[in-house]
Amino acid sequence: MTYQKKDYPVSAVRRFLEPGPVVLISTQWKTKTNIMTMAWQTVLEFSPSLVGLMISGANHTFHMLKQSRGCVINIPTEDMIDKIIDIGTSTGSEIDKFEAFGLTATASELIDAPSIAECYANFECKLYDDVMVDRYNFFIMEVVKAKVAASPKYPKTVHYRGNGIFMHSGKNVFHSEKLRNM
Amino acid sequence: MTYQKKDYPVSAVRRFLEPGPVVLISTQWKTKTNIMTMAWQTVLEFSPSLVGLMISGANHTFHMLKQSRGCVINIPTEDMIDKIIDIGTSTGSEIDKFEAFGLTATASELIDAPSIAECYANFECKLYDDVMVDRYNFFIMEVVKAKVAASPKYPKTVHYRGNGIFMHSGKNVFHSEKLRNM
Repeated sequence: MTYQKKDYPVSAVRRFLEPGPVVLISTQWKTKTNIMTMAWQTVLEFSPSLVGLMISGANHTFHMLKQSRGCVINIPTEDMIDKIIDIGTSTGSEIDKFEAFGLTATASELIDAPSIAECYANFECKLYDDVMVDRYNFFIMEVVKAKVAASPKYPKTVHYRGNGIFMHSGKNVFHSEKLRNM
Repeated sequence: MTYQKKDYPVSAVRRFLEPGPVVLISTQWKTKTNIMTMAWQTVLEFSPSLVGLMISGANHTFHMLKQSRGCVINIPTEDMIDKIIDIGTSTGSEIDKFEAFGLTATASELIDAPSIAECYANFECKLYDDVMVDRYNFFIMEVVKAKVAASPKYPKTVHYRGNGIFMHSGKNVFHSEKLRNM
């Protein structure tokens, strides 16, 4: 299944990242693409729209990203759990993950790396600051273009607890008028 | 309600942080304590157990933490939603949040800042690296002591979507034998 998506303000992508879902990072360097599964990310700033990604040097994506300086943060939904796991337990140095796992690479608008059509949202990112890469494998990325599914309003995401256990997102509740603009 | 807690390996705190819950940061500087609500955090490393916290300079906690170089990351559960919101919409420069919101400050073991008894888990942290503080308000903390509730096995947490809307954590599912040790 693929989603119909619409443009989304980059300053508001925190609505989908701050809850802490497992994400898929897609990259491209020359003619090769790759995808990795991760959840060590954080929002850093609204505008510019900055996101920090901790990507170990043991990941093929680390080297792709150092070269290409761009990636897409894709938000997969719980129906994709088997692909999320397969992507996370294989390496792009050996296989083409788009082909191996039957995912659709669609052209991104502002970067070379492909977006994953089956994901709920695609956030195109450019490397904003590499000052933390050597010491902490921490990439500070700027979201330069965002596309989000027109519906449903909220994605059903998975959140990793370690040891093969995932927490699935539950109900979404409006709790506070005081936070309406925060 | 307060939890009976047991010591927990610091290298495994990611099991509670990686899913992306809203957390409460408690600090102390001289005789003053404070608490803030946040969710811009990420795991950075297993061992040492590193966690990155993005805390805006507009927060009283930013200045407390720069001075004290220590804090506790407390994991609140969904029953605390009203306190989570009240803490997040008030400032410690004006009130004593422990007193104002009826929370119990218990002594931490390795740092001066108090732990919040009502929270499911308390992770005592020392400032590990301040290289990112001036440019990004990003504190790299080392978890030096962890205490986690003896039960339930998983906390029911809240995850912030912005604009007053919280996602509540849902079911926890073991999905993959391949990830049993990851």
